Amino acid sequence: MAKITKEAALLYHSQGKPGKIEVVPTKPYSTQTDLSLAYSPGVAEPCLEIEKNPQDAYKYTAKGNLVAVISNGTAVLGLGDIGALSGKPVMEGKGLLFKIYAGIDVFDIEIEEKDPDKFIEAVKAIAPTFGGINLEDIKAPECFEIERRLKEELDIPVMHDDQHGTAIISSAGLINALQVANKKIEDVKIVVNGAGASAVSCTKLYVSLGARLENIVMVDSKGVISKNRTDLNEQKRYFATNRTDIHTLEEAIKGADVFLGLSRGNVLSQDMVRSMAASPIVFALANPVPEISYEDAMASRPDVLMSTGRSDYPNQINNVIGFPYIFRGALDTQASAINEEMKIAAVHAIANLAKQPVPDVVNAAYHVNNLTFGPEYFIPKPVDPRLITEVSMAVAKAAMQSGVARKQIEDWDAYKLRLRELMGYESKLTRQLYETARQNPQRVVFAEGGHPNMLKAAVEAKAEGICHPILLGNDEKIEKLAKELDLNLEGIEIVNLRHDRETERRERYAHILAEKRAREGATYDEANDKMFERNYFGMMMVETGDADAMITGLYTKVYLVYKPV
Amino acid sequence: MAKITKEAALLYHSQGKPGKIEVVPTKPYSTQTDLSLAYSPGVAEPCLEIEKNPQDAYKYTAKGNLVAVISNGTAVLGLGDIGALSGKPVMEGKGLLFKIYAGIDVFDIEIEEKDPDKFIEAVKAIAPTFGGINLEDIKAPECFEIERRLKEELDIPVMHDDQHGTAIISSAGLINALQVANKKIEDVKIVVNGAGASAVSCTKLYVSLGARLENIVMVDSKGVISKNRTDLNEQKRYFATNRTDIHTLEEAIKGADVFLGLSRGNVLSQDMVRSMAASPIVFALANPVPEISYEDAMASRPDVLMSTGRSDYPNQINNVIGFPYIFRGALDTQASAINEEMKIAAVHAIANLAKQPVPDVVNAAYHVNNLTFGPEYFIPKPVDPRLITEVSMAVAKAAMQSGVARKQIEDWDAYKLRLRELMGYESKLTRQLYETARQNPQRVVFAEGGHPNMLKAAVEAKAEGICHPILLGNDEKIEKLAKELDLNLEGIEIVNLRHDRETERRERYAHILAEKRAREGATYDEANDKMFERNYFGMMMVETGDADAMITGLYTKVYLVYKPV
Repeated sequence: MAKITKEAALLYHSQGKPGKIEVVPTKPYSTQTDLSLAYSPGVAEPCLEIEKNPQDAYKYTAKGNLVAVISNGTAVLGLGDIGALSGKPVMEGKGLLFKIYAGIDVFDIEIEEKDPDKFIEAVKAIAPTFGGINLEDIKAPECFEIERRLKEELDIPVMHDDQHGTAIISSAGLINALQVANKKIEDVKIVVNGAGASAVSCTKLYVSLGARLENIVMVDSKGVISKNRTDLNEQKRYFATNRTDIHTLEEAIKGADVFLGLSRGNVLSQDMVRSMAASPIVFALANPVPEISYEDAMASRPDVLMSTGRSDYPNQINNVIGFPYIFRGALDTQASAINEEMKIAAVHAIANLAKQPVPDVVNAAYHVNNLTFGPEYFIPKPVDPRLITEVSMAVAKAAMQSGVARKQIEDWDAYKLRLRELMGYESKLTRQLYETARQNPQRVVFAEGGHPNMLKAAVEAKAEGICHPILLGNDEKIEKLAKELDLNLEGIEIVNLRHDRETERRERYAHILAEKRAREGATYDEANDKMFERNYFGMMMVETGDADAMITGLYTKVYLVYKPV
Repeated sequence: MAKITKEAALLYHSQGKPGKIEVVPTKPYSTQTDLSLAYSPGVAEPCLEIEKNPQDAYKYTAKGNLVAVISNGTAVLGLGDIGALSGKPVMEGKGLLFKIYAGIDVFDIEIEEKDPDKFIEAVKAIAPTFGGINLEDIKAPECFEIERRLKEELDIPVMHDDQHGTAIISSAGLINALQVANKKIEDVKIVVNGAGASAVSCTKLYVSLGARLENIVMVDSKGVISKNRTDLNEQKRYFATNRTDIHTLEEAIKGADVFLGLSRGNVLSQDMVRSMAASPIVFALANPVPEISYEDAMASRPDVLMSTGRSDYPNQINNVIGFPYIFRGALDTQASAINEEMKIAAVHAIANLAKQPVPDVVNAAYHVNNLTFGPEYFIPKPVDPRLITEVSMAVAKAAMQSGVARKQIEDWDAYKLRLRELMGYESKLTRQLYETARQNPQRVVFAEGGHPNMLKAAVEAKAEGICHPILLGNDEKIEKLAKELDLNLEGIEIVNLRHDRETERRERYAHILAEKRAREGATYDEANDKMFERNYFGMMMVETGDADAMITGLYTKVYLVYKPV
């Protein structure tokens, strides 16, 4: 990966249109009729339907695919309390991740309010807009109360990703690392270094998954969090240990099976790792500098099972393999919440995925050919195309089983297919082209009109209102082929370019072409010969305005300019 | 215009992706490096710049082109208080209008809050997100206080379009109608039927433009608003007349020069119109049924100057010719407000435009060829492509002159050009294609590599990172041409398909083509002949994977599949 310079980062954000997102129409808008449907008077109809049945907002508006990424900028990345506005690039970026990984639309909302009550009021007020709310980069301890109350008081999913994202992914990693180490979660001794929102949530989720509270030691900047400390907030007190024999990380880590670091760089020494139990699990998640570097950890002892937050080492714990799909599953069931059942379903789906054979595309992305479950690979990679189906479906099922789904998915195969299509590059590309095309359908020449694929494409394009197709080819043959393929040619023009009835047109085109190419020494006769060729004839149709565009290609590969990847 | 049925309106909103908008990335995101720029760690850089200088949010985020359309759903269209969520289709629709008329991105925000203080708090809290706020469909009298306080307390433009939009457009119409009638605004007697938010704002703006308060009579559902009424709110009291001789609309309208209706259908009779002064101005803006129909008004007397809110009659008063451009000018100067100066600048820009010769495209859209300033045409049409330049520039200038601009426009010609490009269909189409292409640049064959236009296009495409161009043609000729045109061919491959060094490739391609077309009776020799043709050779490059796509055409018209409109 190229080094990210300040200049490159600023240029990326400022060049062209400032920022990283725009809002675009998804419906036709080029005619007066379109606008009368989109706005007054037609728009009154969906309004009245929603008034009768609020759930219809999912049917007639973007709500059902729309998540708010909301922050007050009090704990932005590693930058701390930089303010709501300063956090906007991060929130836009988070929105971009939602979109590219799970097709979810995001409004990033920066809220200038640090008081939890007022912050909560503002979020509640705007909540009808959205299908779900992703709280982001809000500092502890306010974030706990904010999330708790919003979950309680709103009927749409609310998740503070900083807390639960890392918790879910690291839980999946922990389950798998324990399997590699051949240990049971009930038995392992866990040291958590750091006591922020994320550390607290991770530890709580480990407990939900079977870890024993008495086996856990949490360490903050003042040392081990023990019962006899008087400076503890509610969250920390929950994890305070009864042990009095340990005060520092160095003392706590001795004999531990698991180290979870959500603190700062270089606080875990090789000696500390060496003092841990056999096959120690080290999750050093401080970013960009982990509590111990991958190299140092691996050098300290051969049996360490290591994970970081960095993409350039094995077993990256990256929230992006969680939140897009957790919200995807929640939105697709119109869930009223993201509950514990759904989070735990995500944990297991992610953990299980790492045990499945890895698709070639993932190996290729990492320039390896042998990712297999084990010490070097126990967490799925962000590029894994199966994440969207596996995690979203697991979350959707859990939403239904736990009773928070307001829409039941019945055909899981169809849902899986839809999720796959949602993320296929090809379909994204095609969709954008289609949407553009539909605004202003053009007369498009399909030069290879006699080929089954092209014929199908033309009929489909006509049906979808993308263009007015003109097929080049022998009309009788094309009609016969259409009959065989059970395709309806209604409204599609066929031009039999080689037929006598097109003589006048061929001659006319040939004259124009010959003239245009005169300086290259072209003659009329040569040009006329060319008019028996589909591609030249088609291009002349466009040149003369008889058509607006041409699609051509050797049967399958050139289509809508781009060859599908 | 086709009749808008309930079914069509519901289908329009529900089919495909529910709703009318989506949020899409505007920057590359296909590689790990892209994501490291868009999100962690690169995103920290713009955050820190904004922390140092908040105005940099306009440089590094979407804020500067982002408007919130905010409603609490208390006065939605003609539907009344249907609630925040039920109003969402309208707010999405308004966003769509902002985008297609002025390229402005909109987050529609539905706020579940009727209490003005709490509503104001919520809007203030989320305001850092946006470059401007368009309040929408909020009922009177709360809307006055809400707008007043938000304008006062926020440092971004705030406008309640229901109040000011109609006021601005109808003022422009009034100025022009008065010119047609050869009357002065100081002299005319005005009757306003209706006393809602919009009526109040319209009347206030007429007064700003010179109308005399003592010449104005406002009528609400209880009759003439006069000083001796005791049931008046602050807004209405301002317009209460001293006259005691009139109590009803029928009495008030006698001898009046101007009727402004913002009330309900069919309340103005032909007799009332006949009782007005010479060349009476009738703005019957109730929708969809005006206070008097166009036909009835015109039949009542020949000298009436008529305007409605309907698109199917002359002189439509449609807010869409105002708000997109008012916000465009405000955003482009990073204005801290939309003040009276800016609104009045918009009024005059709109009024003046109607006096200019009408472009063909406007005549064509209305199937006429003779729109000229006069009784039938004194308000510009929504399709007029000059609105974006004329109105936005006037508003931007007024923002600068009145001291609310935080960014000064210096090169007005460049600004004008940018506004034009913003809305050109061609550029929109190209931009979408380009953005799609840039995600994953392909090896694209430019078949007519030796033509100046194609050569320029290839060099440009390379420079913009859209694709890796491959030019087909004689390399010496192309290099000579490039030198003449001062084009840099660095990084661009040239394939001289007819050269001996391509013999192997031609033969290889010919074999494949011959095989593919064997069932059509093609021979190898024929296929080999074809390989001397640019288009066939190029298509075979794509077919065999030597390239991903081909762009071809007779020099100018076929380009990126679509011919520019």
